[in-house]
Amino acid sequence: MTMPPSVAVLRIGHRLVRDDRTTTHAVLVSRAMGSEVIYMTDVDDEIKKTLDKVNKRWGGENEFRLEIIDNWKKILKTWKENGGIVVHLTMYGAPINQKIREIKELSQRILVIIGAEKVPKEVYFLADYNIAIGSQPHSEIAALAIFLDRIFEGNQFNKSFLDEKMKIIPSDKGKNVIQRNQVQSSSSSNNNYKNNNNSNPKKKNQN
Amino acid sequence: MTMPPSVAVLRIGHRLVRDDRTTTHAVLVSRAMGSEVIYMTDVDDEIKKTLDKVNKRWGGENEFRLEIIDNWKKILKTWKENGGIVVHLTMYGAPINQKIREIKELSQRILVIIGAEKVPKEVYFLADYNIAIGSQPHSEIAALAIFLDRIFEGNQFNKSFLDEKMKIIPSDKGKNVIQRNQVQSSSSSNNNYKNNNNSNPKKKNQN
Repeated sequence: MTMPPSVAVLRIGHRLVRDDRTTTHAVLVSRAMGSEVIYMTDVDDEIKKTLDKVNKRWGGENEFRLEIIDNWKKILKTWKENGGIVVHLTMYGAPINQKIREIKELSQRILVIIGAEKVPKEVYFLADYNIAIGSQPHSEIAALAIFLDRIFEGNQFNKSFLDEKMKIIPSDKGKNVIQRNQVQSSSSSNNNYKNNNNSNPKKKNQN
Repeated sequence: MTMPPSVAVLRIGHRLVRDDRTTTHAVLVSRAMGSEVIYMTDVDDEIKKTLDKVNKRWGGENEFRLEIIDNWKKILKTWKENGGIVVHLTMYGAPINQKIREIKELSQRILVIIGAEKVPKEVYFLADYNIAIGSQPHSEIAALAIFLDRIFEGNQFNKSFLDEKMKIIPSDKGKNVIQRNQVQSSSSSNNNYKNNNNSNPKKKNQN
């Protein structure tokens, strides 16, 4: 496989409901699945606070960012001018199963467009690819997640973020979360963690 | 590949906010990606109306259903008694990349559990598998979508629903939706469609 491309997400939506949890989901999926930035046209302050909290706790403050924009078309055009491709996810598009290979083989930076609601018609024509993650109505969050999973072939889950305060140790039963030992880590290794949870019968001790 | 297993989704959540769009997303993802039923513990009437509308328009009234339950534990236990396996999706679980093959090779009916919020601790111990779609916080909708995509290997997108009134013809640009010709179809073929949209420059005529 060639190197995974650098990926950004652009979410277009005009009448975002305050406190809409789907907005938070779109941001967190972008962060967790290998995108480096999400551009949004309209965002509640609460969303930014949620992302800040997640970045502080789970790492990645300098690896993923939310950027508020007021002109999505400019972002799209600049992206293309810089040699990147634009993939718009829509139920009306060409099937992902048929197109994913071609997109990956381009090995270019990808701007993924999702709509919080109906997107302007121009998007269909400005995008290099209109891709359907199935031709049935469902969820732009689901579509984004599957697209990124297919692009990165599951490798996005092996990524770890820098500067995390908490880290999950995968576990068959219960929860196993370790906490970075701040006092020690400042004077020694970054890998200094203490176990933070008692609910796991198969608890593994890290240090 | 063996026959795809029969899949159901159980969404556990207690304090659902009225009009929470994430609930609608969970239902529509379950429907669009090969699950036959979604069990939910608390649902607003609006959600049922939305699903009814989608089923009427895009088909599948007898292929996918939403079932309101008041005892999730009973559903889970009955499922296991009938020989099915239970897979709980959680960021604390074992990595999907490591486990998906094992789960698929079982070729059993799968009940997928997702949480609208924190799930009761018991779920971790009653489930046969606790699976992490990445160990970072994101979205139960995204987790469900990726899990189903991995289980069905993309074949869920080839499924078509019966009795649809509208059907999307995949298109590189714009929207191409055909409408089932109700008058003709009652007396002749079920495949009688008329094109319903002008926005696609590469419009294909179906009949």
